[in-house]
Amino acid sequence: MSASAKEEANPSSEPAPSKKGAKKAEAKAKKEAEKARKAAEREAATASANSTEVQDTAKDNYGSITNATQLASNSVHLRALSEENVGSIVKLRAWIQNSRMQGARMAFVELREESNWTAQGVVASNNEGSVSKQMVKWIGGLKLESFILLEAVVKKPLEPVKSCKVHGVELHLVKVYLISAAPEMLGLGLAAANRAVGRLDEEDTTETKDEGLHITESTPLASLATHLNNPAMHKRAPVSQAIADIRIAVEDLFCEYLRARRFKKFHPPSLIGAASEGGSNVFRMPYFDKEAYLAQSPQFYKQFEIAGGRKRVFCVGPVFRAENSNTPRHMTEFIGLDLEMEIEEHYHEVIHMLEGVLLHIFRGLSTQCREEIELVRSVYPSEEFLLPEPGREVRLTFAEGQALLRSQGPDEFKDVTDEEDMSTAQEKALGALVREKYGTDFYVLDKFPSSARPFYAMPDPENPSVTNAYDFMMRGQEILSGGQRLHIPSELEANIRAKGLDPNQPGIKEYVDVFKSVGVPPHGGGGIGLDRVVAWYLNLPSVHLVCDYPRTPKRLDP
Amino acid sequence: MSASAKEEANPSSEPAPSKKGAKKAEAKAKKEAEKARKAAEREAATASANSTEVQDTAKDNYGSITNATQLASNSVHLRALSEENVGSIVKLRAWIQNSRMQGARMAFVELREESNWTAQGVVASNNEGSVSKQMVKWIGGLKLESFILLEAVVKKPLEPVKSCKVHGVELHLVKVYLISAAPEMLGLGLAAANRAVGRLDEEDTTETKDEGLHITESTPLASLATHLNNPAMHKRAPVSQAIADIRIAVEDLFCEYLRARRFKKFHPPSLIGAASEGGSNVFRMPYFDKEAYLAQSPQFYKQFEIAGGRKRVFCVGPVFRAENSNTPRHMTEFIGLDLEMEIEEHYHEVIHMLEGVLLHIFRGLSTQCREEIELVRSVYPSEEFLLPEPGREVRLTFAEGQALLRSQGPDEFKDVTDEEDMSTAQEKALGALVREKYGTDFYVLDKFPSSARPFYAMPDPENPSVTNAYDFMMRGQEILSGGQRLHIPSELEANIRAKGLDPNQPGIKEYVDVFKSVGVPPHGGGGIGLDRVVAWYLNLPSVHLVCDYPRTPKRLDP
Repeated sequence: MSASAKEEANPSSEPAPSKKGAKKAEAKAKKEAEKARKAAEREAATASANSTEVQDTAKDNYGSITNATQLASNSVHLRALSEENVGSIVKLRAWIQNSRMQGARMAFVELREESNWTAQGVVASNNEGSVSKQMVKWIGGLKLESFILLEAVVKKPLEPVKSCKVHGVELHLVKVYLISAAPEMLGLGLAAANRAVGRLDEEDTTETKDEGLHITESTPLASLATHLNNPAMHKRAPVSQAIADIRIAVEDLFCEYLRARRFKKFHPPSLIGAASEGGSNVFRMPYFDKEAYLAQSPQFYKQFEIAGGRKRVFCVGPVFRAENSNTPRHMTEFIGLDLEMEIEEHYHEVIHMLEGVLLHIFRGLSTQCREEIELVRSVYPSEEFLLPEPGREVRLTFAEGQALLRSQGPDEFKDVTDEEDMSTAQEKALGALVREKYGTDFYVLDKFPSSARPFYAMPDPENPSVTNAYDFMMRGQEILSGGQRLHIPSELEANIRAKGLDPNQPGIKEYVDVFKSVGVPPHGGGGIGLDRVVAWYLNLPSVHLVCDYPRTPKRLDP
Repeated sequence: MSASAKEEANPSSEPAPSKKGAKKAEAKAKKEAEKARKAAEREAATASANSTEVQDTAKDNYGSITNATQLASNSVHLRALSEENVGSIVKLRAWIQNSRMQGARMAFVELREESNWTAQGVVASNNEGSVSKQMVKWIGGLKLESFILLEAVVKKPLEPVKSCKVHGVELHLVKVYLISAAPEMLGLGLAAANRAVGRLDEEDTTETKDEGLHITESTPLASLATHLNNPAMHKRAPVSQAIADIRIAVEDLFCEYLRARRFKKFHPPSLIGAASEGGSNVFRMPYFDKEAYLAQSPQFYKQFEIAGGRKRVFCVGPVFRAENSNTPRHMTEFIGLDLEMEIEEHYHEVIHMLEGVLLHIFRGLSTQCREEIELVRSVYPSEEFLLPEPGREVRLTFAEGQALLRSQGPDEFKDVTDEEDMSTAQEKALGALVREKYGTDFYVLDKFPSSARPFYAMPDPENPSVTNAYDFMMRGQEILSGGQRLHIPSELEANIRAKGLDPNQPGIKEYVDVFKSVGVPPHGGGGIGLDRVVAWYLNLPSVHLVCDYPRTPKRLDP
């Protein structure tokens, strides 16, 4: 199928709308889609009626599927279809990805299964009458992204079908039944869905350049909002499925590594009785005769597990932040990959474990997901994610990082201090310096100043103005925050007071009480943002392209 | 260590309080614990001071741990300790599970690691002075559930130590440092924590008998509330850790089975924009300038994944019910194990898959978790969970179930109809009949009446008064609900109207729109309550004993 035929067949690939015209265009498209849908429904309803016209000798071989439809041939899947099948009759359920008529007697349809297994289907009317001209026309007229059941003879094409993943064989259709019809006009065509997103957000276009969005001026790009408002088509795009598969791999690799090291999974609650980690940025809601809050992290619960005699624990689940941040880095709900473990001698055991699990993830991706990563890069080009040589992991103290910024960073950071937390811009500048100096996109910043860490962070016994707490960075952006925690209740209470908080306030008292109730071993851990790991690894322009259903201050649907 | 010594050493094993006295007793215990804790803190603070008395030749060999404490010996874990270690000097970090003085010169301590790896420690003063009488006294006086670092010589005991899991060797302590002190009085002693719970809930004592709680009148039983209010000690009990380990196994077996069958994991959102599955029983909350709701199930999102071209999906995560039900079966937040898949020919493919994954779980538990199951049964006795012979799975239609109840059930169910949903009592009675007749505790109830199912349930094409929807039962209690879903938007809208709902109302419109936006294949699935599977498999009296941090209308802490 030629490139021009493809574009013709994809009515939704419209030019990227200007900022001002975007809303109008979207509204118009919606209206048209609605009109088209109604037409399609009418058509689908009459299709089988049409097919029963007296002259049509093929009338039983196509039309809408009914409860009586039965095909005795062997079921196949495109991923398993090869030249070994040539000559056999098979049945298949597939999407119509593309179609075109060739005169009145022949049609080509591109069939798709899963994310990107495609094959060419051919249908031509014959003299025996088992395939009629009406049948060919009906097939050629099926709407893109409809779902069909077909029976076909597997044949070897004259030359390999370059446009399809299955190129060694083609399917000569003998029966086609419509299982589920797509509308006349798609809200987002597959070709558009499989291209890089255009504008990321009405509120935040400034970040677009920053985050390395790869726009080719000539390609029509749908906005992120259009993608997310059309979840079924957005998700059908091979690039979306590749990102989703990489995300699954990250989670699985995380769990696999920890399980092998005797970590036990548990599920912290989302509903909690007090805004335990500070009152701002927390969702609150009526809860019977009380008030409930949504957990901002599983922090306290991971520690309760350690107090409860589980030496090493991990969890995977949603955490919530009521932060009105409309950037490509933020979401109000996201999946955290968390771990916590007993410390035997030194908290660097925890850093070592966290480095280990992240390197396991990065190395696992590069072998297990090579194909998916290539596919994503074909849409969102990115430089290779550089890893340190084994045994040469880069750990800088926060003070060393600031010193590097002062001495070799941009002029604006000549006066950064060791007492104040880094800004996003500082982090990125430091990331670039570390990449240049050490040849890695992955490194640790250790010994954060006390002022930048919560009340439960263990002070460095040799220098109490800093803590045994760290961030892990990818391409100069934070993906993990963690540290050693205070496990002696008297020290914990003293630190709570030093932060200007009251150890007896709701949420904190219950936490401290657990440490008073038993002897708790020294411990530490960290929390990883799943979507950030995937986004920064692939250098995607937004975490909203990674999360299955991103939630932001402006988005709760679909 | 003798049984009487054990009881002496456990000051919190108090007799089970009467119903009326319970609150008073708990308040008193709390007060005493608080007093004791303060005393313990004072003691801990002065312990190292005491140990530096002039006469004490062993002063460097015990006391509170400091940053200078270093032990050069090899680190061991109790699970790896055997007679091969006899003669070597080892170091170990462990809980003090029990201790007793034998005269003034000798003490025995029972050491614990993980959930139930225990070993006997012995310390006796010697003539060389490396272990002094003061040191023995200090060790014998350490509070139960304190965490210590010790150095010891591994020796073969005169006879095997019956009271410990490690019985072939014992540890002769030469150095002991206190890492983290427990309070004088525990809120819940380990022995009590490791017994069956007493009263389940102030509001709901009637269910106690019903659910098969196994109380021996003579044993002191702590109430469920006491257990949950003392999370660290509740969790340290071997029975709690065994239940937690079985729960992990259920989740892992679920994921393993589905992954091997090409199911893809995804994460549905918890925050949603409308009360999609009906307005009652849903938590709502302010969300910036809007309102948000907590998802009651991942139902819609599983279907969006199917619409998005993922042929088979599963998810594991929290779901929320704002239901004021105070029973041992209910929680306001629980972990759902959900799956959804394309249907090729018939929705019984889905039932087959669900039976497959549950049987994989049950069979996996009986091999992987044999030891844990035995441990739980030693506390909560239960009959073997009966499975059907392979290939002889029991599937009854709802109507067949009702007929069985009418003909062979208790008198009160002589008049049950095929149109009304079953009550919990009916379900249990049917479970008993099925066990008797078919020899299985696991079976399927298929073809539920339309009136008992939500608007998205696919009607049976041959009898529209029932649906292609089912429940899965364990010991007569529902653990899974599922079915085939309507995938054609016009049929979906008609069914929504037939249920008296408006297809254009918020939450429903966005759902229907997805089906209008593309052609969606036929599909079905089901959702499993993780805690119920574990609770009913083990015949536990409450799901609150399974969930890591149960949430009920009255409980949001810890």
